[in-house]
Amino acid sequence: MHPFQTYCREELGRMKAEGRYRSFAALNKSRGEFPRYTDAQGRRITVWSSNDYLGLGGSDELAEAAIAAVRAHGVGSGGTRNISGNTPVHEALERELASLHGKPAALVFTSGYVANQAALGTILASMGGNWHVFSDAKNHNSMIAGMKNARAKTVFRHNDPAHLDALLAAAEPGVNKLVAFESVYSMDGDIAPLAELADICRKHGALSYLDEVHAVGMYGTTGAGVAERDGVADRIDIIQGTLAKAFGCHGGYVAAGAEVIDYLRSAAAGFIFTTSLPPALAAAGLASVRHVRQATGLRARHAERAARLKDAFRAVGVEPMPSASHIVPVLVGDAALCREVSRLLLEEHGLYVTAINYPTVPRGTERLRFTPTPRHGDAEITEAAQALAAVLRQVGLLRSADAA
Amino acid sequence: MHPFQTYCREELGRMKAEGRYRSFAALNKSRGEFPRYTDAQGRRITVWSSNDYLGLGGSDELAEAAIAAVRAHGVGSGGTRNISGNTPVHEALERELASLHGKPAALVFTSGYVANQAALGTILASMGGNWHVFSDAKNHNSMIAGMKNARAKTVFRHNDPAHLDALLAAAEPGVNKLVAFESVYSMDGDIAPLAELADICRKHGALSYLDEVHAVGMYGTTGAGVAERDGVADRIDIIQGTLAKAFGCHGGYVAAGAEVIDYLRSAAAGFIFTTSLPPALAAAGLASVRHVRQATGLRARHAERAARLKDAFRAVGVEPMPSASHIVPVLVGDAALCREVSRLLLEEHGLYVTAINYPTVPRGTERLRFTPTPRHGDAEITEAAQALAAVLRQVGLLRSADAA
Repeated sequence: MHPFQTYCREELGRMKAEGRYRSFAALNKSRGEFPRYTDAQGRRITVWSSNDYLGLGGSDELAEAAIAAVRAHGVGSGGTRNISGNTPVHEALERELASLHGKPAALVFTSGYVANQAALGTILASMGGNWHVFSDAKNHNSMIAGMKNARAKTVFRHNDPAHLDALLAAAEPGVNKLVAFESVYSMDGDIAPLAELADICRKHGALSYLDEVHAVGMYGTTGAGVAERDGVADRIDIIQGTLAKAFGCHGGYVAAGAEVIDYLRSAAAGFIFTTSLPPALAAAGLASVRHVRQATGLRARHAERAARLKDAFRAVGVEPMPSASHIVPVLVGDAALCREVSRLLLEEHGLYVTAINYPTVPRGTERLRFTPTPRHGDAEITEAAQALAAVLRQVGLLRSADAA
Repeated sequence: MHPFQTYCREELGRMKAEGRYRSFAALNKSRGEFPRYTDAQGRRITVWSSNDYLGLGGSDELAEAAIAAVRAHGVGSGGTRNISGNTPVHEALERELASLHGKPAALVFTSGYVANQAALGTILASMGGNWHVFSDAKNHNSMIAGMKNARAKTVFRHNDPAHLDALLAAAEPGVNKLVAFESVYSMDGDIAPLAELADICRKHGALSYLDEVHAVGMYGTTGAGVAERDGVADRIDIIQGTLAKAFGCHGGYVAAGAEVIDYLRSAAAGFIFTTSLPPALAAAGLASVRHVRQATGLRARHAERAARLKDAFRAVGVEPMPSASHIVPVLVGDAALCREVSRLLLEEHGLYVTAINYPTVPRGTERLRFTPTPRHGDAEITEAAQALAAVLRQVGLLRSADAA
């Protein structure tokens, strides 16, 4: 046996011992019944941890767009964008995304992860690598991956513009500066002070890179994200987003100035050397963005559902972690216990809520992460709150007296 | 304007001056008419540069599987594999791929690029990073990306087992060794001596990592690739492949021992932190692999078509670059000329053949890359050979006397 195999066995044993070994629940997503799925035994499960935030993945609009495109174009694109894998619908999708964000151009990648990793990696390899990056302490793994080889990297305190300001002021003269941050942070649900961050970037001549994957579709008048809501999109240089969450589809993108996008298109290895998205996904993505831009009622309902779930939790004595968004985390604080609470919710109450453990969040902050959608009704919210309280009492994390 | 924007403008100008600025042709892939596409003006184009090598992307089998799955499950999966994005069909696809390669387990990634980058990156970060990688000189960018942060890296001469043997023998004692190579090299069409490479890896206790993306579906009795054809799959530790080329679908994967796969599943950031493939793509991929495993007639026809195209080129005086596979490259040797030949074939003859320029291939080896499929008929082969000869004469790369 190669030593690597032994290493894998030992590491897996360690994960199991620490309670952070992950078993994936196999769930069938049933179109039209969202957020109800079925498990392997055919039992109906209410899913509370989907990133299909608006429940659009199963909508008729998207399904029909995808089916029509499969009929017209087949399944795989058959090539990279440069090798016969570029279709008019890919280009139309990029124009639509650019328009959504009020930017001159956009570029679609195979995922939001790849968009961050490839775009940031390509920027930081440019200009002789003479870059200093400033990264929010809670940035997603995909941005961290994209900044891995940065010549200089400084982490600023999460959502702390004053700290960023001080760090930028202390940067070496002549170095190119890039500041990377998110709008909605997916595991805490807090929202960045975008206007202040954008102003500080401008003040110090730093390129600003904003990840809106947990915001696009849901915030702003037309769903362009928190930058739209806060009126700062024109002060952010590069906006990154995804089609795989609120848009209910698949793939990621960046939107920016025409020459920046054309350069990334021409130089980003993670864009160049990979098969383009299937035409049916590009078509469904395009249909979704067009639909979502005018779906203001859906956005209002989404926000109302999130507020209602938080209220329902408080009513049963469970204080959710602070969150300014549609993401409703509930602290457990221990990996094994977090998995146990999740297991009990699934097995005894038919509710799927993912246990979020290390490495996704720091050890000691293990949590359940609820993401209510416009399709979670009042009865489901009440059911979830009562089941959560019952399970937390069962494992000793909630006393009966805590209930309001 | 931020200096990065100026940089982008200058770099784009440089690419244009060197003739290596890429414009993507927008082509509509018409299902059922493959390899005929339509361009933006509705003109019919015969595509000679698709990686849908068997023409299955537009097949009824795949389209029906995808459509049925969209109807049942909608479009996006809505989550990572760990956060409600794991469906029974993802698991069935992984079992099928493991079985295809005769390995205990397999793991699906969002692309072949991500599979290489994430799997190699994760392995080389394991065991305290105490790895020395040995990489074939012509390895694909995605493998190079995965090995970027390797503590030690040595490039061995392309397809040269003796060179690899000598380098491995000289490696520092106690270091973990990994050897990465492909079976079919996509830009030259040559095939690696897998049995010799596998034996040398075993001799030196090195982990072997084989990229079969340009071989799966097409080589071996059941389409498991060159490792199956050569009877060496059980001597290769990790086999990587794609669903986006001969399988006509989307996504990538690795197949290996159960604990290696479980470790990658548990530790590879590029797997953990990204939305899983849409259920419809997993379903279409599964249908394709099952279909292709028994499609021996299709594989025979594919090989015959490639041989026939090479003969047709020789008959008009064009010697293709040496190729032992279905990939038929024709050397041009200059970026601007290569783009011009491609443009003339498209505009004057309605044939789409991608110009392959730097950075995909080294400068001075710019080429056209033909990939005949089972769906290219005799008439299309004759048409391609005559058009190619005419255009090469037109630009002065072929004299009339060269014709046989």
